[in-house]
Amino acid sequence: MKVRVLVSFKESVLDPQGQAVKNALLTLGYDFIKDVRQGKVFELELNDISREEIDKVIPEISHKVLSNPIIERFEWEILK
Amino acid sequence: MKVRVLVSFKESVLDPQGQAVKNALLTLGYDFIKDVRQGKVFELELNDISREEIDKVIPEISHKVLSNPIIERFEWEILK
Repeated sequence: MKVRVLVSFKESVLDPQGQAVKNALLTLGYDFIKDVRQGKVFELELNDISREEIDKVIPEISHKVLSNPIIERFEWEILK
Repeated sequence: MKVRVLVSFKESVLDPQGQAVKNALLTLGYDFIKDVRQGKVFELELNDISREEIDKVIPEISHKVLSNPIIERFEWEILK
């Protein structure tokens, strides 16, 4: 089983990396860019685990290890 | 329009951050973890752009600015 977890800053948190990318793109002439937010993606490959266990353990891992819940939010999906 | 670009190391490239996360999870007792790969995610908000322009310009931006094509690959999708 393969699971993807996306971690990004909460809306209220400044994202200087995203801002830097936005400014770079505007400088290059891509003037349709309104905003850029940058985050992290984790692809986890899992052995021998049921769908029920995934539903329990992936939010737990995402909350405890992959993100900082004070400033970041996460979402996850099963890839296959 | 909102577009998401995922950038990750090519399969053949070592991913030390992913390895560190994998080792941390195994140490914490999550022994069903087989592998972890870490990458970047960019969420781009776009003004006044057609679907055709997106199809042309997002791969260009992803290739030229958001990723290092020598060691990274990207995929992208329209969110809304």
